[in-house]
Amino acid sequence: MNEFLQAALDEAKKGYVEGGIPIGSVLVHNGKIIGRGHNKRVQDGSAILHGEMDALENAGRQPASVYRECTMYTTLSPCSMCSGTILLYGIPTVVVGENKSFMGEEELLRSRGVEVTVEDNQECFELMQRFIQEKPTVWNEDIGV
Amino acid sequence: MNEFLQAALDEAKKGYVEGGIPIGSVLVHNGKIIGRGHNKRVQDGSAILHGEMDALENAGRQPASVYRECTMYTTLSPCSMCSGTILLYGIPTVVVGENKSFMGEEELLRSRGVEVTVEDNQECFELMQRFIQEKPTVWNEDIGV
Repeated sequence: MNEFLQAALDEAKKGYVEGGIPIGSVLVHNGKIIGRGHNKRVQDGSAILHGEMDALENAGRQPASVYRECTMYTTLSPCSMCSGTILLYGIPTVVVGENKSFMGEEELLRSRGVEVTVEDNQECFELMQRFIQEKPTVWNEDIGV
Repeated sequence: MNEFLQAALDEAKKGYVEGGIPIGSVLVHNGKIIGRGHNKRVQDGSAILHGEMDALENAGRQPASVYRECTMYTTLSPCSMCSGTILLYGIPTVVVGENKSFMGEEELLRSRGVEVTVEDNQECFELMQRFIQEKPTVWNEDIGV
């Protein structure tokens, strides 16, 4: 597996161990991780800290020029919130672990010029499926269902 | 002025006094404010706490059924991040103070069935203009420019 997708998956696993929704992300600039994060709905009672948002928040305030050279790696297809954030900051490239558990706004991203690659990674998928079976209500809450 | 837009403007003013970007929002459910917030980029060094996001975070974890009966009042047209979040949670109605300082994703929201009203409020506009003239670099950072 790509080392950065592996780092995102490591974040997702950390979230699972904490009792949270196992989705992780890393923001990579010039081959270096500048922000790591995972979903914090359960842990922090947060409505906005999806994995991608947590990674962006942990990267801190960055100039536009940095975001425009970044790649976002995330274990699950980004929802409309996270996709909107990717668009806000002009992040040009997104690598997605899997989109079988949830199909996010990949088409919107592509229509705005973002390069989206889906790895169809089995480990990302299995972790997500395990959680959805264990805690379907928490999962539905996270995607507004 | 509508009392809820006034509450959003009060949040924006609070942000201005704190030295932050003066954008405020309130989330209203059945005629009651369940979350208030304002942009925290400067105050918290946050890349994701726009006014709308802060209001949603302060509303805490809510079931989907609550969001679907909410109206988001915000002093400025919501950017792609905040619009994506409105879509994630299925918030059906958005009232915008003004969109002359910044035009957000109003068309995307409308295309997905969200009712967006723009009040063209002079006080929201003047507060925003004052900040943009005083701290243009911080403002540009906030919108990824």
